[in-house]
Amino acid sequence: AFRNLFLELHPTDQVELFVSFDQSQRQRVYECLSPAEFADIFQGLELEQQKEYITELDQTFAIAMFNSMSADDLADFLGELPDIMAETYLNNMGQKDAQDIKNLLAYPDETAGAIMTTEFIALATKDKVSHVLQRLKEQAPDAETIYYLYVVNEQRKLVGVVSLRDLIVARDDQLVEEIMSTRVVSVSVLDDQEEVADVIKKYDFLAVPVISKQGKLVGIVTVDDVMDVVEEEVTEDIGEISAARGAVDLQLSSFDAAKKRAPWILMLAFLGLISAGVIGQFEETLEAVARLAVFIPLIMGSAGNTGTQTLAVVVRSLALGTLDRVGVGKLLKRELGTGVMLGLICSLVLVLTVPVIYDGDLVLGVIVASSLLAALSVATVIGAIIPLIINKLRIDPAVASGPFITTLNDIIALLIYFSIATALLQYL
Amino acid sequence: AFRNLFLELHPTDQVELFVSFDQSQRQRVYECLSPAEFADIFQGLELEQQKEYITELDQTFAIAMFNSMSADDLADFLGELPDIMAETYLNNMGQKDAQDIKNLLAYPDETAGAIMTTEFIALATKDKVSHVLQRLKEQAPDAETIYYLYVVNEQRKLVGVVSLRDLIVARDDQLVEEIMSTRVVSVSVLDDQEEVADVIKKYDFLAVPVISKQGKLVGIVTVDDVMDVVEEEVTEDIGEISAARGAVDLQLSSFDAAKKRAPWILMLAFLGLISAGVIGQFEETLEAVARLAVFIPLIMGSAGNTGTQTLAVVVRSLALGTLDRVGVGKLLKRELGTGVMLGLICSLVLVLTVPVIYDGDLVLGVIVASSLLAALSVATVIGAIIPLIINKLRIDPAVASGPFITTLNDIIALLIYFSIATALLQYL
Ligand SMILES: [Mg+2]
Ligand SMILES: [Mg+2]
Ligand SMILES: [Mg+2]
Ligand SMILES: [Mg+2]
Ligand SMILES: [Mg+2]
Ligand SMILES: [Mg+2]
Ligand SMILES: [Mg+2]
Ligand SMILES: [Mg+2]
Ligand SMILES: [Mg+2]
Ligand SMILES: [Mg+2]
Ligand SMILES: [Mg+2]
Ligand SMILES: [Mg+2]
Ligand SMILES: [Mg+2]
Repeated sequence: AFRNLFLELHPTDQVELFVSFDQSQRQRVYECLSPAEFADIFQGLELEQQKEYITELDQTFAIAMFNSMSADDLADFLGELPDIMAETYLNNMGQKDAQDIKNLLAYPDETAGAIMTTEFIALATKDKVSHVLQRLKEQAPDAETIYYLYVVNEQRKLVGVVSLRDLIVARDDQLVEEIMSTRVVSVSVLDDQEEVADVIKKYDFLAVPVISKQGKLVGIVTVDDVMDVVEEEVTEDIGEISAARGAVDLQLSSFDAAKKRAPWILMLAFLGLISAGVIGQFEETLEAVARLAVFIPLIMGSAGNTGTQTLAVVVRSLALGTLDRVGVGKLLKRELGTGVMLGLICSLVLVLTVPVIYDGDLVLGVIVASSLLAALSVATVIGAIIPLIINKLRIDPAVASGPFITTLNDIIALLIYFSIATALLQYL
Repeated sequence: AFRNLFLELHPTDQVELFVSFDQSQRQRVYECLSPAEFADIFQGLELEQQKEYITELDQTFAIAMFNSMSADDLADFLGELPDIMAETYLNNMGQKDAQDIKNLLAYPDETAGAIMTTEFIALATKDKVSHVLQRLKEQAPDAETIYYLYVVNEQRKLVGVVSLRDLIVARDDQLVEEIMSTRVVSVSVLDDQEEVADVIKKYDFLAVPVISKQGKLVGIVTVDDVMDVVEEEVTEDIGEISAARGAVDLQLSSFDAAKKRAPWILMLAFLGLISAGVIGQFEETLEAVARLAVFIPLIMGSAGNTGTQTLAVVVRSLALGTLDRVGVGKLLKRELGTGVMLGLICSLVLVLTVPVIYDGDLVLGVIVASSLLAALSVATVIGAIIPLIINKLRIDPAVASGPFITTLNDIIALLIYFSIATALLQYL
């Protein structure tokens, strides 16, 4: 009864329920379900959960389950295990499957090879439609998708694609080469996973074929896995903008979160000491007119916020690939123009506001306003150039971006502010 | 020749090429292609481009093209036109199609209804597999997808789903009800588009059925359109974190970008005046010890950065739906713990660093360090609570979040810093 109730659920819901179980309930699941049935649940777990529950399975059950898992999901899991454990498992699996997995494990992280699966259906150009449909009846349960079928020649080079839609519409006696499309878009096995996602998004594909350097079809990436890639990359980008890279995860303990976030906060604090040094240079000016300190947060904050806005534009353009279309020159011109205008607006407002708050102190108003104009104009340019340079150098963009830009803009803004103030000190 | 070369390209590539054409080249495209062929290109254009090029088409061509477009894409386009123009077009279209479009146009933005299409294939429980396959041959060209077929009863209520995979594997004489899955996951027509995306991501669907309040099947949302939704929502979230909501678009002119970003920067500048007011309260302290001003950027920056990190965690959790699983209480406890630890680390480092830089000024070091400890502990809590409240109140979260949190944290941090400094003034 338990078994039937459980299996009636959608696999995704089985996973949710399973995760809520305690150990004795889980034990019952292992006893009730076949390895193939449990494979559906295991595939849906997070890597951390997989590593925990695998210890509760006996070796034979685990191996049988592995044989029922998708090659990509199995490779992801085995890649997380210590090498010696992974090899023990692989040595006990079927020869052919194990080799597939070993090949997948060899691709670098975040490449097409690392996210693809080897369970695709390849057709020959001379296959007959009726035969293909017959073959699908047998192979459907094993393949990752049967909705796109890729056509290869004798050298296993990719020459075309047929959708199941094309097959359904075709006459039974037609040949694959008659109905296939030869304008087949593919990605290379070492392409970044983000490029794979871009292709699927751009062409509205359900899957994209992956070819080796020699043009041979070696795997496919399906849209469901690309959705996960998009999530992962977005989390990276948001971590980057907010200086929380690697720490945007709710599951972490306070201690782990602090450990991951502390380097950023400390690095920023040290950069903050540079701002402190800059202000320190103007201690005489400050001692003469203490109220200058009052506008430090305003000047710094405005420059920082303006730069962060530009950063968001650039990070998003890089992710969406729109920058190539528009061009860096145009971006910089746009941002400089935006910065000047933002500076003009802010300075106009403040040259009027400051004297009202500080009983007619026009000079202070002029100092604040002109500093804002200069600082905001620079801030947009910094906010655009830094991430572009980092991207160009192919450094991990997280090393800098958000925090680096804000602090650089802080320093520049404070330099501008105190320089202007010192120059106009006699009028204050 | 031009026609054949052009049509050999993938529709997505046709779009790219078409966009690069000048007016006389575009004219040639309109002359060469049939309305149905051009519909593929038109659907791939951005809304702004569609509005521009529609003026180059004559009315008959346009109407014929509309009849070949997907209902969802056509509704999106007509929704952008002035009502009177949209109605003129609709009145000239086929009665049934026009009614479909009008229904789609009635759904509020960002709901399942607004992104769904009405071109799905519905089966009856008693349909025979062989008949369904036959029917697919005819309907395949018009349907948005033929890979998921939804099963409805006499009242058009959704009762099951059959994948084309199930159909291919089934025997010809089986009935739909024998092979359909009754555990069919659906969304409601007024569900937020983000919930639709979550369902598709969670279950790895290629499409999800949309049902009316009465449980009737009224449309489907396909995974390709969900990918666009994800892009849109991510752009929103990044705009929110960086106070650049609505302006993260490279295509805007400097003027338009400044216009969209200025309200944020100005609002932040005004909030910055509050910080100025806070510091103003401590002018006497500042006049006594001007070097206190030196650490304003460090204190402010650290509190701001810590709060932004927390914000990123919360925004991401809300988007991924992981917060429901973990719970608000646990999040707040986690963040408070993280804040205290970050504060301890920073204060430890600075209590040692400040006296080194400022020749043995231990008291200054203690002031800076204890302010950081208090400010960072508060900053994480503020960074978590504000976006949660905003989300709960269902206010547009953009009204605040990023900038609001940073400025609130600035003010609190400065208050703490100067209060401690004033209390310890006699020892400085
Ligand atoms: Mg992998
Ligand atoms: Mg798309
Ligand atoms: Mg997969
Ligand atoms: Mg998957
Ligand atoms: Mg990325
Ligand atoms: Mg990446
Ligand atoms: Mg139509
Ligand atoms: Mg729509
Ligand atoms: Mg998924
Ligand atoms: Mg669509
Ligand atoms: Mg679409
Ligand atoms: Mg959202
Ligand atoms: Mg939204």
